[in-house]
Amino acid sequence: MYKEDIKVMDCTIRDGGLMNNWQFADEFVRAVYDACVEGGIDYMEIGYISSEKAFSRDKVGPWKFCCEKDLRRIVGDKNNSIKLSAMADIGRVDFSDIPKASDSPLDMIRVACYAHQMDKAIDLAHHCMDKGYETTINLMAVSSVSEPDLEEVLNDVSRSNIPIFYLVDSFGSMHCESIEFLMKKYKEMLPGKEIGIHAHNNMQLAISNTITALINGATRLDATLLGMGRGAGNGPLEILIAFLKNPKYRLLPLFKAIQEYVLPLSKKVTWGYHIPYLVTGALNSHPRNAIAWMESENKDDFVSFMKEMHDYELLE
Amino acid sequence: MYKEDIKVMDCTIRDGGLMNNWQFADEFVRAVYDACVEGGIDYMEIGYISSEKAFSRDKVGPWKFCCEKDLRRIVGDKNNSIKLSAMADIGRVDFSDIPKASDSPLDMIRVACYAHQMDKAIDLAHHCMDKGYETTINLMAVSSVSEPDLEEVLNDVSRSNIPIFYLVDSFGSMHCESIEFLMKKYKEMLPGKEIGIHAHNNMQLAISNTITALINGATRLDATLLGMGRGAGNGPLEILIAFLKNPKYRLLPLFKAIQEYVLPLSKKVTWGYHIPYLVTGALNSHPRNAIAWMESENKDDFVSFMKEMHDYELLE
Repeated sequence: MYKEDIKVMDCTIRDGGLMNNWQFADEFVRAVYDACVEGGIDYMEIGYISSEKAFSRDKVGPWKFCCEKDLRRIVGDKNNSIKLSAMADIGRVDFSDIPKASDSPLDMIRVACYAHQMDKAIDLAHHCMDKGYETTINLMAVSSVSEPDLEEVLNDVSRSNIPIFYLVDSFGSMHCESIEFLMKKYKEMLPGKEIGIHAHNNMQLAISNTITALINGATRLDATLLGMGRGAGNGPLEILIAFLKNPKYRLLPLFKAIQEYVLPLSKKVTWGYHIPYLVTGALNSHPRNAIAWMESENKDDFVSFMKEMHDYELLE
Repeated sequence: MYKEDIKVMDCTIRDGGLMNNWQFADEFVRAVYDACVEGGIDYMEIGYISSEKAFSRDKVGPWKFCCEKDLRRIVGDKNNSIKLSAMADIGRVDFSDIPKASDSPLDMIRVACYAHQMDKAIDLAHHCMDKGYETTINLMAVSSVSEPDLEEVLNDVSRSNIPIFYLVDSFGSMHCESIEFLMKKYKEMLPGKEIGIHAHNNMQLAISNTITALINGATRLDATLLGMGRGAGNGPLEILIAFLKNPKYRLLPLFKAIQEYVLPLSKKVTWGYHIPYLVTGALNSHPRNAIAWMESENKDDFVSFMKEMHDYELLE
């Protein structure tokens, strides 16, 4: 499906880091970076930009902060063919934590927020633009936002200067019809802005939801190597690139990084389709309970997990 | 997505058996059967019906033949809430191998064929109907059939008495647009017949292709527990049931069989998404080269596999 104006972003380190607290070996991060450069990937999201006050370096690796010295250790002077992104979570970063773009290898900051945080997100995103970054807003967990609330935040975004807005299926609960519905709403209510898609794989629909968003006008597509990401993970970058058949991308460098780095890591860190994630996805719930279950001794007792989740849902 | 007239078929033993030569322990087959009965699944395809001359019992288990005594050992008098199916491959079974339906626990025979075998398939299917079975024709590998050839076979099927025809994505190479295109063609050229969908997961699109077929009028949906099936496997039955939210189905019995039987088997027999299957899917090729690669010592050397497949494709 050749579309000239699409941009693909690899989020392996940023979203995958949610499963190992961003404690990647430098050579792993460098291998992902090199694969993205050689594979012609447009953007690589290398982590979060966070306040040092919000997290302890004893618990999380450097890619929760994305300091210049850590970034330079991986990318050196940085290849101009790829752009680097970091994600900023509302409430976890102060304006003062964000360097001027001219002082950083980062090209883009993506501001992630829930619907009730949209005013703060727009403020932070404008601040990032003022500092010289490309900027997006990624509205998380849209599958649990009511239509009036969604229309209110879309109105706010439409009046902002933020040029790119993401459809984010945080819970992996959406399918082609819900993606198509939201893409139409986003395109209609956000004229002149680009729309992106970030999907999770709880119901093995991440790649197809990305394709459906693309067909309906999304131009910014997120994916990760071997689908590494929170819980059930994301759509695999290698599938997306194989599907797109766009001559600007190359598969072999991605396969090389997967076989040498990502596949071995997948034996130690568990992500991807597992039944507890299916349960939370089908219930349109945050994956946190499934992640905790997968870390417990009972991880393969799906019947008990479903009974617990059923009780939990009834209580809410 | 509640649709009253859909029928779901579990194909775990039949399609999964392609990965272990149908050498399942009896208790495994019984567990799948019990799960399907308790889960309200409409049909279970328990294997192939084949000529004893075509395969050696030294190499393949009983579910390549589906003899009455083997079936009875599992299902006893058979619960009336579920129907049993077996698949017949053209060229691997003679008319005389098929007992009268009144002498067998089988309710349905699905005839699988390639486009050039359609006359033989229609003959065999009519023969099965005459013997008292529900019958379908499953046209395999349709993604590599030219449009004139496809229209010819659809014309033949439309003039037959066969009531059900399947869209089969044997190579796992299709996506929502190709599924929608074929569903429209099948519905238009086969008035009065039911359409089914059988998808493979090479590009992690099996579940979404099943949903797209359903939205476009398919009423017969195939899936397998934990996606067990040839190569990249099929759409997981548990995801399909979680998605459908139809009150006639129940998830817990499926989860129980998965955790007690199918998940343990998945540690010994490899199926599901792996990069060699992505490569054959993206190339619209039969998975046989990927299956052989996955059985070799080089199974995780994806770069070499892709280079080999590229040379192989260029030679064709």
